[in-house]
Amino acid sequence: MENFNVTAYEVKGTVDYEKLEGKFGIMPLDRRLQERMEAIAGENHFMIRRGIYFAQRELGWLLDQYEKGNGFYVYTGIAPSGRMTVAHLLPFMMAQWLQEKFDADVYIQIPDEEKFLIKNDPKITLEGINKLAHEDALDIAALGFNPKKTKIYLNTENAGTIYKQAVRVAKRITFSTIKDAFGFTNETNIGALFYTSTQAVGTFIKSVEEGRNIPCLIPLGVDQDVHFRVARDVVEKLGYYKPAIMHSRFLPGLRGEPKMSSSDENGAIYLSDRKEEVERKVNRALTGQQSTAELQRKYGGDPDKCSVCQYYKYLFEPDDAALEKIFAAERGGSMLAGEHKKALSARINKFLEKHRAERERVEGHIDDFMMKA
Amino acid sequence: MENFNVTAYEVKGTVDYEKLEGKFGIMPLDRRLQERMEAIAGENHFMIRRGIYFAQRELGWLLDQYEKGNGFYVYTGIAPSGRMTVAHLLPFMMAQWLQEKFDADVYIQIPDEEKFLIKNDPKITLEGINKLAHEDALDIAALGFNPKKTKIYLNTENAGTIYKQAVRVAKRITFSTIKDAFGFTNETNIGALFYTSTQAVGTFIKSVEEGRNIPCLIPLGVDQDVHFRVARDVVEKLGYYKPAIMHSRFLPGLRGEPKMSSSDENGAIYLSDRKEEVERKVNRALTGQQSTAELQRKYGGDPDKCSVCQYYKYLFEPDDAALEKIFAAERGGSMLAGEHKKALSARINKFLEKHRAERERVEGHIDDFMMKA
Repeated sequence: MENFNVTAYEVKGTVDYEKLEGKFGIMPLDRRLQERMEAIAGENHFMIRRGIYFAQRELGWLLDQYEKGNGFYVYTGIAPSGRMTVAHLLPFMMAQWLQEKFDADVYIQIPDEEKFLIKNDPKITLEGINKLAHEDALDIAALGFNPKKTKIYLNTENAGTIYKQAVRVAKRITFSTIKDAFGFTNETNIGALFYTSTQAVGTFIKSVEEGRNIPCLIPLGVDQDVHFRVARDVVEKLGYYKPAIMHSRFLPGLRGEPKMSSSDENGAIYLSDRKEEVERKVNRALTGQQSTAELQRKYGGDPDKCSVCQYYKYLFEPDDAALEKIFAAERGGSMLAGEHKKALSARINKFLEKHRAERERVEGHIDDFMMKA
Repeated sequence: MENFNVTAYEVKGTVDYEKLEGKFGIMPLDRRLQERMEAIAGENHFMIRRGIYFAQRELGWLLDQYEKGNGFYVYTGIAPSGRMTVAHLLPFMMAQWLQEKFDADVYIQIPDEEKFLIKNDPKITLEGINKLAHEDALDIAALGFNPKKTKIYLNTENAGTIYKQAVRVAKRITFSTIKDAFGFTNETNIGALFYTSTQAVGTFIKSVEEGRNIPCLIPLGVDQDVHFRVARDVVEKLGYYKPAIMHSRFLPGLRGEPKMSSSDENGAIYLSDRKEEVERKVNRALTGQQSTAELQRKYGGDPDKCSVCQYYKYLFEPDDAALEKIFAAERGGSMLAGEHKKALSARINKFLEKHRAERERVEGHIDDFMMKA
């Protein structure tokens, strides 16, 4: 028995990311690949050099394609079930960076039926998710995407484009295959069974649109890899390239949960959280510090176990030297929890204020980012 | 063991329609119901009075609704896999009659993914079926539908409307349920598993469009009942009326097969068959006649076992007195096979010529019949 579990619909226990590589058959995003990306991009994204994006599939091949002048496009997404949290930023910030540095088009799937089909919660309605999906589109667009090179689409509203392609995928996936892969049972509903085929469509949708085979790179949380483990062979049989993938770790919950959950009101920071909410939540965050200020000053804390340090590392301090200073202060015991949390709250609030200003700015022309139905 | 089998995807053996009623839990379309329909329509459709439409669900309730002034709409469809045959006319001729006599809107689903998902035949492509689907739309429109009261839709092209509603159905149907109902296995693909939820959508699509609950009547071949056995409770849970259904027998194949199959080139008459093809095929038809002309003259034949007689009964001789004359001639031995077949060929060709003229006429304004994507 493993003491952790990562499926598309559940993350439990303390995730051993190295073990996950073996289990999923994915490869490290190693120094050599990082250097190749850096040579093209002119910089190494902090999430990559810090191992937050820790694994990959076919990334070397993708860079070969890029260097040959074939280019690639980026595909990622979010399944709405509540308001967007800062954890949801990871794939989108990476996608935006890839767009900017590799001149890549970005396709963003918002499967506004997935959680409705997967979750057994009568409060989750299609209408409710659809509203959230449109809120998500604003939050995503606000992250600096180029509207000329970005297509956000909703599975229900863009089904006229997606469904037919999903059918092509679905024909080649049996119940047996996904039963094991997703932990489904005979009592799983047929919509949930079908769903993964719509997620696969993004890996070749641009190839369909343009009538030629275009490489695809997917930045995603590692729990989503299963969709493409199932689909990659199918996609190839349909005549398209297998997608390349970059896998990220999970942003931990504020109180040390292995993955921030948008349904955990107090463990998650929402993009819509106001100043006081952020302060209140960060104040209750788990730190790696000793039980008293005295002990902390004497022995110091452990940044790896400190949510506050981790939030800087994952999202809020891109500068390595500045991050090391924060980590050193935690380790050395010079920074006490209260001060530490106050500084992070301020940093997060600064980010969220800027984000919401951008969000307002894109609201007037959000249609420029959306795929035409 | 039954010596026949009727599922959505296979009809084998000599179908015992009475046994089917018990098996499917459907009720006879009895004299009382026929009289109620006749009182409204001003006539009893020959397919009803001859027991070709032999069974029903909820038809009494539907007529109550109609008499209360609530009206109803008609839903039927065809899954393209080849050219349309005369057997495919049964639901559409009934739908057209219901439109005319009950002032009913008609919704026609052309699920242009179903056979692609169900059949394991590499020659069946989505592109190929899509072409057939548009051919089918012409053949259907040519049957006299009122374009102002008719909406034909393709599952792939109208997925923008259908998919979201199918998701609502799919959430309430488990793999266990459809595995048994459709004879699926763990190796069935997830598209085939999902498909039935799209077929269910037609039972409430008009209610969704108009934002009120509208009764629905489905004329269908009895093999399609299973889709609605599965869906009727789901549809009710979604807040819509269970559909009423009228079940037809199968038009036999020309050579006595229990159901004309569009993939049996010689046993089927296609709407596109030219004069000589019809003559050639009808010439090879099974009749209920004796082995020699002499014996036939002496003992006579059996109209119930005679495909030629059955084709008059099901489709090509709406007049009961004229039909009885044909049956009497067969029984009495006065009409020999050659003459009998020649007369049927002529009748079919007359029908097909008129049909093709109508088909050409509607081709110019087929869009008037199609649901907007």
